[in-house]
Amino acid sequence: MTFPWLKGHGTENDFVLLPDHDGTVHGTLDPAFVAGLCDRRRGIGADGVMRVIRTAALGEPSDATWFMDYSNADGSVSEMCGNGVRVFALHLLQEGLVPEGEPIVIGTRGGDKTVTPHEDMFSVDMGLPEVRGYSKVSANGRTWEAQDVRTGNPHAVAFVDSLSDAGYLVDQPDFDHSVYPEGVNIEFVQRVDAEHIKLRVHERGSGETRSCGTGACAAVVAHALDRRTSDPLHCRVDVPGGTVWVDWGPSMPLTLTGPAEIVARGEMDWLS
Amino acid sequence: MTFPWLKGHGTENDFVLLPDHDGTVHGTLDPAFVAGLCDRRRGIGADGVMRVIRTAALGEPSDATWFMDYSNADGSVSEMCGNGVRVFALHLLQEGLVPEGEPIVIGTRGGDKTVTPHEDMFSVDMGLPEVRGYSKVSANGRTWEAQDVRTGNPHAVAFVDSLSDAGYLVDQPDFDHSVYPEGVNIEFVQRVDAEHIKLRVHERGSGETRSCGTGACAAVVAHALDRRTSDPLHCRVDVPGGTVWVDWGPSMPLTLTGPAEIVARGEMDWLS
Repeated sequence: MTFPWLKGHGTENDFVLLPDHDGTVHGTLDPAFVAGLCDRRRGIGADGVMRVIRTAALGEPSDATWFMDYSNADGSVSEMCGNGVRVFALHLLQEGLVPEGEPIVIGTRGGDKTVTPHEDMFSVDMGLPEVRGYSKVSANGRTWEAQDVRTGNPHAVAFVDSLSDAGYLVDQPDFDHSVYPEGVNIEFVQRVDAEHIKLRVHERGSGETRSCGTGACAAVVAHALDRRTSDPLHCRVDVPGGTVWVDWGPSMPLTLTGPAEIVARGEMDWLS
Repeated sequence: MTFPWLKGHGTENDFVLLPDHDGTVHGTLDPAFVAGLCDRRRGIGADGVMRVIRTAALGEPSDATWFMDYSNADGSVSEMCGNGVRVFALHLLQEGLVPEGEPIVIGTRGGDKTVTPHEDMFSVDMGLPEVRGYSKVSANGRTWEAQDVRTGNPHAVAFVDSLSDAGYLVDQPDFDHSVYPEGVNIEFVQRVDAEHIKLRVHERGSGETRSCGTGACAAVVAHALDRRTSDPLHCRVDVPGGTVWVDWGPSMPLTLTGPAEIVARGEMDWLS
């Protein structure tokens, strides 16, 4: 089976892109094939696969021309990925599949997303957050209070004095299962100043990752609430894999801005 | 820059292969290019790169037709890799570059290596081990006595009651720097029976890995010595990434037997 592919990443959240404009290359994407490609030792290695397909060919309800058909590394279908959609937009631009100098609308299972290219960055409208209450999280023998913020995914945001306080983050940190019955992504956030935070994140099912777009958004919401300000905030977020920026204020949708890179492209025979 | 590539692994020790038979595709292999390819988030991802080149084209002192021009993931040149050489042999066979049904001699910077294909396994002559004394290693707040065995690389082999005794193995375990001034690979070995051990390994510079060919050999030497037998030993070694077998007895060279797999092949444009 020979097919075109690309590899790219956004703040080290990495993806195999599979151009399949008319859905004729891969048909229905086989979960075992996706999982094989994404395996970092027995395959190519990636956090997920993004099939590049016309919305019409996939038959999804969307007004966008191009659809980000996203699968997690385990082969399961996912709605959206805030770091992935920037890489997807860069690919569409590089291939001339969308006009330059205009916002790019991309269909996803989480709804149509508008990506705005800047010089070497891409901004994505991430929607309105849902702010809930507080619960406790524990890691490395310590316990913190954590703000419950929903940004597409459930998040528990804990402020720490130092990112090393969370320890190795190999095991799933403890959390309140009555608050998060379907699991939770846990952000450990160190404040730098009013417009700058650093974080580490443990993603449910994945362990500690290099970057989490919805997690950066949730952390900035918690940071803004914690500062008890109503001013719109433009906040730098340092994640292990790089830096993103989040804009947010009360009643404003979240905007996530960050880099995207395509590092390789070619044709592949998959032999496994 | 467009070039042919393959991805393969032996017990999840994984490699990008770069066919460059006459040395005209890559010229001298650029360490930054190798490191970029091997980066698991910003590149393709691998433990190392094996250029497939004619010995004559590389100008190495070897009688073998084909040379395994091996680089570590950081771009530094290395002598040999016991798991890699099996994948290299499989590639030569699959491409018809060597005759079937015969031992395959492969040039490496650690000398010519003879690989013998079996049904779905490959055996490699790993040479004679050098057995030295004992020192202490510490991890996870515990200390063990460790046998010093040299099998191309320096190893410290510690027997543990359970592989979990070594903890997360994120940090470099403590060792005696006067015994190993250039660092050491540390094997934590659990005995199953006289002909079966399990191990985890922390490789200097790489952290915990899925498999280490020279480490499996060193562990079997220590296991044989510990059992105070002079009989030749055929020992199964379970590593995190699979299973290999090591044959050894006093005055015998070590033979490492294990699987090899090629999972993808194609042409690539490297854009980074």
